[in-house]
Amino acid sequence: KPVNERRRSVAVPQGIERDVFLKALAELKEQLGGQHVEINDKPLVDGWYMEHPNTHDMMTILDDEELVASAVVYPGSTEEVQTVVAWANKHRVPIFPISMGRNLGYGGAAPRVRGSVTIDLGKRMNKILDINPDDFTCLVEPGVSFYALYEALKEKGYDHMWLDTPDLGGGSIIGNTVDRGVGYTPYGDHWACHAGLEVVLPTGEVIRTGMGALPGNNTWQAFPYGFGPYSDGIFSQSNYGIVTKMGMTLMPNPGGYESFMYTFPNEEDLSLLIDIIRPLRISNILENVAQLRHVAQSVAARGLPRSKFYSGDGPVPDSVIHAAAADSPVGDHTWAYYGMSYGPEQFRAYKLSLIDAAFRKIPGTKKIDPATLPEDEYFWSRDRIAAGVPDIHELRWVNWTPNGSHIAFSPVSPIRGVDATALFALGKKYHDKYGIDFFPAFCVGLREMHLIVEIVFDRADPQRRREALDCLRDMVDEAARLGYGEYRTHLVLMDQVAGTYSWNDGAIMKFNEKLKDALDPNGILAPGRCGIWPRRYRGRGWEM
Amino acid sequence: KPVNERRRSVAVPQGIERDVFLKALAELKEQLGGQHVEINDKPLVDGWYMEHPNTHDMMTILDDEELVASAVVYPGSTEEVQTVVAWANKHRVPIFPISMGRNLGYGGAAPRVRGSVTIDLGKRMNKILDINPDDFTCLVEPGVSFYALYEALKEKGYDHMWLDTPDLGGGSIIGNTVDRGVGYTPYGDHWACHAGLEVVLPTGEVIRTGMGALPGNNTWQAFPYGFGPYSDGIFSQSNYGIVTKMGMTLMPNPGGYESFMYTFPNEEDLSLLIDIIRPLRISNILENVAQLRHVAQSVAARGLPRSKFYSGDGPVPDSVIHAAAADSPVGDHTWAYYGMSYGPEQFRAYKLSLIDAAFRKIPGTKKIDPATLPEDEYFWSRDRIAAGVPDIHELRWVNWTPNGSHIAFSPVSPIRGVDATALFALGKKYHDKYGIDFFPAFCVGLREMHLIVEIVFDRADPQRRREALDCLRDMVDEAARLGYGEYRTHLVLMDQVAGTYSWNDGAIMKFNEKLKDALDPNGILAPGRCGIWPRRYRGRGWEM
Ligand SMILES: Cc1cc2nc3c(=O)[nH]c(=O)nc-3n(C[C@H](O)[C@H](O)[C@H](O)COP(=O)(O)OP(=O)(O)OC[C@H]3O[C@@H](n4cnc5c(N)ncnc54)[C@H](O)[C@@H]3O)c2cc1C
Ligand SMILES: Cc1cc2nc3c(=O)[nH]c(=O)nc-3n(C[C@H](O)[C@H](O)[C@H](O)COP(=O)(O)OP(=O)(O)OC[C@H]3O[C@@H](n4cnc5c(N)ncnc54)[C@H](O)[C@@H]3O)c2cc1C
Repeated sequence: KPVNERRRSVAVPQGIERDVFLKALAELKEQLGGQHVEINDKPLVDGWYMEHPNTHDMMTILDDEELVASAVVYPGSTEEVQTVVAWANKHRVPIFPISMGRNLGYGGAAPRVRGSVTIDLGKRMNKILDINPDDFTCLVEPGVSFYALYEALKEKGYDHMWLDTPDLGGGSIIGNTVDRGVGYTPYGDHWACHAGLEVVLPTGEVIRTGMGALPGNNTWQAFPYGFGPYSDGIFSQSNYGIVTKMGMTLMPNPGGYESFMYTFPNEEDLSLLIDIIRPLRISNILENVAQLRHVAQSVAARGLPRSKFYSGDGPVPDSVIHAAAADSPVGDHTWAYYGMSYGPEQFRAYKLSLIDAAFRKIPGTKKIDPATLPEDEYFWSRDRIAAGVPDIHELRWVNWTPNGSHIAFSPVSPIRGVDATALFALGKKYHDKYGIDFFPAFCVGLREMHLIVEIVFDRADPQRRREALDCLRDMVDEAARLGYGEYRTHLVLMDQVAGTYSWNDGAIMKFNEKLKDALDPNGILAPGRCGIWPRRYRGRGWEM
Repeated sequence: KPVNERRRSVAVPQGIERDVFLKALAELKEQLGGQHVEINDKPLVDGWYMEHPNTHDMMTILDDEELVASAVVYPGSTEEVQTVVAWANKHRVPIFPISMGRNLGYGGAAPRVRGSVTIDLGKRMNKILDINPDDFTCLVEPGVSFYALYEALKEKGYDHMWLDTPDLGGGSIIGNTVDRGVGYTPYGDHWACHAGLEVVLPTGEVIRTGMGALPGNNTWQAFPYGFGPYSDGIFSQSNYGIVTKMGMTLMPNPGGYESFMYTFPNEEDLSLLIDIIRPLRISNILENVAQLRHVAQSVAARGLPRSKFYSGDGPVPDSVIHAAAADSPVGDHTWAYYGMSYGPEQFRAYKLSLIDAAFRKIPGTKKIDPATLPEDEYFWSRDRIAAGVPDIHELRWVNWTPNGSHIAFSPVSPIRGVDATALFALGKKYHDKYGIDFFPAFCVGLREMHLIVEIVFDRADPQRRREALDCLRDMVDEAARLGYGEYRTHLVLMDQVAGTYSWNDGAIMKFNEKLKDALDPNGILAPGRCGIWPRRYRGRGWEM
């Protein structure tokens, strides 16, 4: 994608005059130091995963200039975050905090309101404040990535503790967790595994939640609840506060582990397979958040462009995908289950035998012998991730199109064949309608699964962007009609998704708005995030 | 304790005139039906656990008349709860919701503000709305007790699902869970195991949290978070809403289980023992919330009055306790560990062998053979509870004094010998000071433990009540000085305990108050619960 090299003019937030805004920024520079406030008047360079921009979404689905920051600030401490918040309140400037801004597929680093001042917390606040080898916990700042924590554990020789990592290890632990991201070890529900927050409120005060509110405590990371209302939850997927520290629990080394992979031949196997998985998963015979992937995505995960396989328009035909799969070490199939068994050898043997017996009820099931798979096969990436080793192999399917970008559709359903089938059909219908390749993967949690559908698109092509977005909007609406809602979503879909959670005349949004107005009377913090608009913005057409 | 038989006059809430109040009640009777509004002008009968009052605390630590309801109402539906809330707002009457009012040790059924109208939700709203045998979940109303759910599971033949029960099975699932109570199977953290709430807000609106906000969903109990801020937590240990429905996950039958018990001879063994327990617990070799009990409580748990053992004043001497223990099937000891191992036989054998090797590092450790224990031995009660079978054996130690009542001190600490020792010394010091028998039990969670100290007192004796309360207040203060805070507390201690969570000039309480004022502008819902006073009450000397 060609970069527009001209010097851009700053996207001043709506409702404030240009020179008033620039004067306010000058004031902030004085408070934080000039080098810690960057005005965004340079070309918008997309970079790549490891060198991503913090001014906009490197995988933008809209025009670059739509969701763009006016400036980026780099606080170095909680006090400096408070300074920025006080400044924002004084000048009524929307601010948008990111930890590292790698929320790709969900909006990257982009703010929801054009011209917001992005607070890039991670650049300077990136310390691992504590690792407690007795309690199996740690305390981190926003700039600590999964990679960084992993390295620190290795460096200290703490082999008795594992971390949990999402598919890509370059994101921050805090950013991922407050957006309620997931990983693939038994500690994969990051929100459930965190313990203790330090939060700067939109009015500038700092609170510590849980036991953190007790001076001199030694249990902030050991006991999440504390006394009184357990308020952590309202700081996830919201715009009620800026998290400056977070505690996280670490998984004990299980004393052994073993990846396994099964393939299933037909699309229709999905229903029975999911019903087989459910009781095994709930009773922890299947111990981690499994990925059940469609072969199309596995083919894409080789990292080759789509054009290597097919040069026509519209979705790559099934026959082409299957031919490519047949030609691979795994062999042809439609669904692949990637799992891991944990614990001492005899425990694993027992569990694996139950799993094997159950999976083989599906005709044509194949258990893949890992020894037959080459080193760079996708299987080994899943193996690393399910063992808590950060990785970036997963990025490869983004190469499927030129200027490869992606955006996610992530509805939640029970672990039931009938639901899996309905969601699969729904996705297929709209992908076909818009001529988009369909990459479904079911991530099976404990009692629910998320279908994760990543639409890969060429971000330099406005037509493709439009189609991807239309497809998503159609899927979100139809899913809601069927009773399925998203667990998380992209910035541009937040209003729509929030709108589907409309029970009792939108009671939950009215409640969210009431909290927003109480906590952020000037409406400065991340307006519109997760569909929550402060009073000052409501009824003025900000939704999209 | 003699009941005062005279007809009492109604405790009218402060700030409202008697006849205005009585007129308001008459209005409410019209709305709900006269039989569903009971004026509390009858003698305060304490009853016993299975027939407890809903007008006051049957184990009161203050004079009966201090924390007493003016009336009790029985809504039959969520709509009727809304009616009561609207009525309370109209007349500015404090209301206090209970599910079943069996919160003994923490205030029973008493409201925090004298003269509140108690909403006894459980009496009429007591349906199990759903049990889902595929998802291992259920949806209940406030009046569903652990016993009732257990019976329903048995009746339906759902042996593949277990519930988790606290030590006493007569409480409600909702009341226990919103107070963040605990049980003793691997699903013992009830708050963590709930999924989905329906809440009537203090202003009368109804919300459903998580996926419940999505019309037509089938994941309300399967996926707790939904989309956007995860607000459930602020409805636990608070006064922000009335929970009218709650989802709960059920534990899969582990396919085998086995209780075990170890005793340790000396008080000083505590430190090493706790350090041995920590890694085993965190890595789930020890799988349930264990109780590590002091012998004094085990002797009391036989259900005999203290006078059978000792007739002097002050604490029963150690020598007497040990003699009584020596004379029992378990034999003399100081600490007893009650645990359970879950899963198929070979799994249990492996885990139990690790546990055995570790525990035997303490000289004088004895593994107790269950076969040697008579049927009514306390061990079998722990065995039932750790297998999810509701019980009431635990009530027996309440017989220790005449008019036996109790009140709990429940500080949280890391699972460390040094902390256990410090808390034990602290408790002992103040029990000795006030001449009270000391019953410490450590409940070992995953990364933390709660010391639970129950002070058993004669509620008919004002002097004993005073001593028990003074002892508690001293312990709370000193624990806070050492960095330990309570996980939950009795009504009369809530202000004090909330005051210990004072980091950054009481930032968390200011935050809680801000939420309270936003959600409950008239300050009608459970004023003072967990130390949170609505604006109307603040600065007027309500704290105690
Ligand atoms: C190929 C691919 C695979 C992926 N796989 C996964 C996966 O398996 N699991 C998964 O969960 N995600 C996945 N993602 C999405 C994303 O990369 C990760 O969630 C990532 O960890 C988020 O990065 P971050 O920490 O930089 O978040 P950020 O961008 O820093 O944060 C995300 C959002 O949270 C809010 N936020 C962040 N920090 C704070 C704070 N301190 N205070 C208040 N609000 C804050 C902001 O609104 C921000 O936009 C994947 C992405 C790609 C491209
Ligand atoms: C011997 C003994 C042993 C015990 N052991 C344990 C134990 O092992 N674990 C444990 O957790 N507890 C224990 N307890 C304490 C108590 O008995 C239980 O927690 C019990 O389950 C609470 O009963 P309940 O449901 O009747 O609560 P309730 O009294 O109905 O509720 C407790 C409080 O929560 C709030 N509340 C209740 N329902 C609602 C609602 N619907 N909406 C909003 N707020 C609400 C109210 O403020 C109420 O005062 C023990 C008590 C005794 C006497």
